Amino acid sequence: MATYAHPRAALTVDCVVFGLDDGGLKVLLIERALDPFIGSWALPGGFVRVDETLEAAARRELAEETGLSQVFLEQLYTFGALDRDPRERVVTVAYYALVRLADHRVQAATDARNAAWFAVDDLPRLAFDHAAISEQALRRLQAKVRYQPLGFELLPTRFTLSQLQRLYETVLERDLDKRNFRKKVLSLGILAETDEIEQDVAHRAARLYRFDERAYRQQVRDGFNFEI
Amino acid sequence: MATYAHPRAALTVDCVVFGLDDGGLKVLLIERALDPFIGSWALPGGFVRVDETLEAAARRELAEETGLSQVFLEQLYTFGALDRDPRERVVTVAYYALVRLADHRVQAATDARNAAWFAVDDLPRLAFDHAAISEQALRRLQAKVRYQPLGFELLPTRFTLSQLQRLYETVLERDLDKRNFRKKVLSLGILAETDEIEQDVAHRAARLYRFDERAYRQQVRDGFNFEI
Repeated sequence: MATYAHPRAALTVDCVVFGLDDGGLKVLLIERALDPFIGSWALPGGFVRVDETLEAAARRELAEETGLSQVFLEQLYTFGALDRDPRERVVTVAYYALVRLADHRVQAATDARNAAWFAVDDLPRLAFDHAAISEQALRRLQAKVRYQPLGFELLPTRFTLSQLQRLYETVLERDLDKRNFRKKVLSLGILAETDEIEQDVAHRAARLYRFDERAYRQQVRDGFNFEI
Repeated sequence: MATYAHPRAALTVDCVVFGLDDGGLKVLLIERALDPFIGSWALPGGFVRVDETLEAAARRELAEETGLSQVFLEQLYTFGALDRDPRERVVTVAYYALVRLADHRVQAATDARNAAWFAVDDLPRLAFDHAAISEQALRRLQAKVRYQPLGFELLPTRFTLSQLQRLYETVLERDLDKRNFRKKVLSLGILAETDEIEQDVAHRAARLYRFDERAYRQQVRDGFNFEI
């Protein structure tokens, strides 16, 4: 028990986890096992402990509720509308995460009955204000992917230029010209060619590339402006 | 008094207020009249009441501590390091604000002894983690001003192209070529020429322009990308 001179809001974290597969961009949701909104789909998240940082709370909740760890995670926005939780005043610090779907298996745990991926453009009805939080996370991803090499966090470590183009087309929700895209993306100098090619494909196997983080960091220091 | 099953962090808001004058970009600070850090300079801010939104708290604290109201205000980031306040766990939601210096007079009130503008590149030693918060706000402003017409919030409603150029040069901390700048900024179609010219100047009086918000909003809808 803890007593304070003035009433205090409860503090939570919520995570919008994006993943990419052949079917497009996905968001990871959990089915709530507790009231309120028991049985509803919701973003993974929960209460911040008084002795843990916000990011630590977000990573702990992600691990507990979905089994995910070591993902790219960045703070999105803090939502504090007065009536966003029917129980009491709850302020939530939202994060968004990007995961390589091929590398991660998702499993429900603790407060979640179930965890599953949903197409970002076909989410079920969500608990609390989680629909608005998801929407804002998608807008942030769409804005950031054009100026920072965030998208690589969604791809396998080694990828073809076609996979990279499909990533941008999916996130930005528009078609890109293949020749212009390749020319632009190769001119950025942040892709390193590997000596590997695609395996197990019917068509002519394409070259695999990897993101060259060192080259990217050097270019940022030099005032380089990454823009697709 | 309020009692809870688990200890809770206290929740505050802090505001990084930017203003622009002939001397460059300024930040508004208050001198703390209370412990901790009594007598130190700090960002205006304070505790969020359990029945007010985060933005309402930020606007209330700004008005109480500096006399400012009706300013452009946007959420920056939420800071939750465990030891950022010597009293107890305090999580702060930081905002940044842009004000037209000519339109506003600043006055200290309530918890602040004094309020004053400081050059952004010559801030005094700040209380708490407010130096880090100010630094992050400056980086956000520098990033955003290139893609959104935020800068107009810092200028008088009617301004010359020279004033507009000086704004971008000041915020971005680099010189811009006058001819290229004018060509670029006029081609954006978001400036409206007024039928007024500068008053009381020794040199040839320049045309005054205003920001055309309607044209800007239309262009955003059309997929326009504002970039200086």
